[in-house]
Amino acid sequence: MSKSALPVFVGVDVGGTNIKLGLVADDGTVLAKSSFPTQVDLGPQHVVEQTKIEVDRLVQTSDLAASQIVAVGLGTPGPMDIGRGLILQPTNLPTWKDFPIRDRLSSQLGLPVTFTNDANAAAYGEYWMGSANSYRSLVFFTLGTGVGGGIIVDDFCVEGAHSLGAELGHMVVDTRPEALVCSCGRPGHLEAYSSATAVVSRTRIGIASGVKTSLCDDENLTARTIFEAAEGDDELALQIVDETAHHLATGIAIVAHVIDPEAILFGGAMNFGGRDSKTGRRFLDQITKQVHNSVFPEIYNSLKIDFAQLGSDAGYIGAAGLARVQYQKHLRVASF
Amino acid sequence: MSKSALPVFVGVDVGGTNIKLGLVADDGTVLAKSSFPTQVDLGPQHVVEQTKIEVDRLVQTSDLAASQIVAVGLGTPGPMDIGRGLILQPTNLPTWKDFPIRDRLSSQLGLPVTFTNDANAAAYGEYWMGSANSYRSLVFFTLGTGVGGGIIVDDFCVEGAHSLGAELGHMVVDTRPEALVCSCGRPGHLEAYSSATAVVSRTRIGIASGVKTSLCDDENLTARTIFEAAEGDDELALQIVDETAHHLATGIAIVAHVIDPEAILFGGAMNFGGRDSKTGRRFLDQITKQVHNSVFPEIYNSLKIDFAQLGSDAGYIGAAGLARVQYQKHLRVASF
Repeated sequence: MSKSALPVFVGVDVGGTNIKLGLVADDGTVLAKSSFPTQVDLGPQHVVEQTKIEVDRLVQTSDLAASQIVAVGLGTPGPMDIGRGLILQPTNLPTWKDFPIRDRLSSQLGLPVTFTNDANAAAYGEYWMGSANSYRSLVFFTLGTGVGGGIIVDDFCVEGAHSLGAELGHMVVDTRPEALVCSCGRPGHLEAYSSATAVVSRTRIGIASGVKTSLCDDENLTARTIFEAAEGDDELALQIVDETAHHLATGIAIVAHVIDPEAILFGGAMNFGGRDSKTGRRFLDQITKQVHNSVFPEIYNSLKIDFAQLGSDAGYIGAAGLARVQYQKHLRVASF
Repeated sequence: MSKSALPVFVGVDVGGTNIKLGLVADDGTVLAKSSFPTQVDLGPQHVVEQTKIEVDRLVQTSDLAASQIVAVGLGTPGPMDIGRGLILQPTNLPTWKDFPIRDRLSSQLGLPVTFTNDANAAAYGEYWMGSANSYRSLVFFTLGTGVGGGIIVDDFCVEGAHSLGAELGHMVVDTRPEALVCSCGRPGHLEAYSSATAVVSRTRIGIASGVKTSLCDDENLTARTIFEAAEGDDELALQIVDETAHHLATGIAIVAHVIDPEAILFGGAMNFGGRDSKTGRRFLDQITKQVHNSVFPEIYNSLKIDFAQLGSDAGYIGAAGLARVQYQKHLRVASF
């Protein structure tokens, strides 16, 4: 294949609100991208058909030959069965049940589809093209409504025997009797502290207990308003930021000793403004300090701990990257 | 290569007291095995030379052609640099410092050597030929003087960026203010509860605090005598067994959500007699019950939790198995 006709990969990231997709070159460059509303009520087959229309449109408006598009990567929310290519019944796609999305998309596009969890896809995106670009191993936390994760070592993604690998939000990080209860019903999980939902509910507890604050326990209380209060040095908001950092740092210390990765990154919107804000930098600083004290120096001294870089593009870029890994393996096997 | 001349792998397990080694067939059968004292004071080069003598002897006394021996697997205690093939300065090999054991053994034997951590090797042994034989992924805890571990997924071993992957003894499993301090100086690590050393020191605390017991705080107090007291229903000993199970179960629950493996096994001597004793069965039963309540049912329902099977043979068998994985990769690459 000549350089001008290098293979191109489609990445698709299925979310509860939008489907994001892109055409990604062999070197990770995004050649074209697009998104469309999921419209959950119209069902998953609608998304499959709409994806075909969007991919065709992107190929036509780009300089690519259709034959250059060689493989597709697809990330969806769990629970799922990666081996069988099924979406089971994700919370944010309530009417989609046991849908064979991998094979349907493969038929529709006439291309092989590599299927993975959306957090694994985002992890691979950061590993391949984002902040962790030059690292051989990455643990990735997604901090959003819940807490998810992805673990990549040497291009290998820890998917798990039941498609539940890297459920980092469900690590136990608090064994005190007063530990908060996770959305899954079990005490002391990271998700009970470091998700947007948990940040809001912990702030409500703080307001009720009389900690000094400008925040009100009303429908306007969100992770965003708590972040804004922290930017204005609100006492309760800062306390919440520090506690969130503390529990996340405990989780990072655990996974650092389990995986010994080169980088640990956090993506997702629950990042207190990230590197661009005073609060985000405080958050990262607290985490880094605690991890420094909690992890073997041999690991810590060369461990990158940072916010992720690709934002909401990480999912489809990573899905495309995982399709590329499969494609390359297939090439090697095919050339025997 | 004809069936009668299938490849054979050498496995070597370097310990502080003994070196264990074996000739292992392509199907995992141990064709011959041996061991000799490490004699730490004579230094690592002595071990390398003695290994050569023992391997030659095993080959000669077996029905094998020397040409059938195609590769060597070597497991040693950490700290180590797996990528560079170095033993750094293991606690139980105090005078061995920065020794290039992989390349020295390779020169001595005239064969390629696959180098790994001893706990990873034991994990691979159990994954390949032991209790976890029919599983695709395994998390393995070694419970001994300390607590180590190995993680294997689809023939891939999580070695870590600094050869510190699967340091499962250093997962935080206790965040209470009264958490015990680990041998590494950090609070609440699994090793502070579930190693033989920790079991003895926790029993000493129990004796001092006046818990009813037949045990005495003297030089005869070992994990073995505590186990024997538990077999006789000693109150303190049983309490120690249950607490050990509790903290190990917390660690298992964490790693179950991080890796989602098909099996979790514990090897090492600190097993309260294993399956053959009343206390060992109580230990396993307590762990299983707690993990049942702490882990997603999708994971727990098909998760095997058990004692390991290969005992002290796991290390050299697994080292040979990892050499076999490398050998097969090499064959595939070589046939391009």
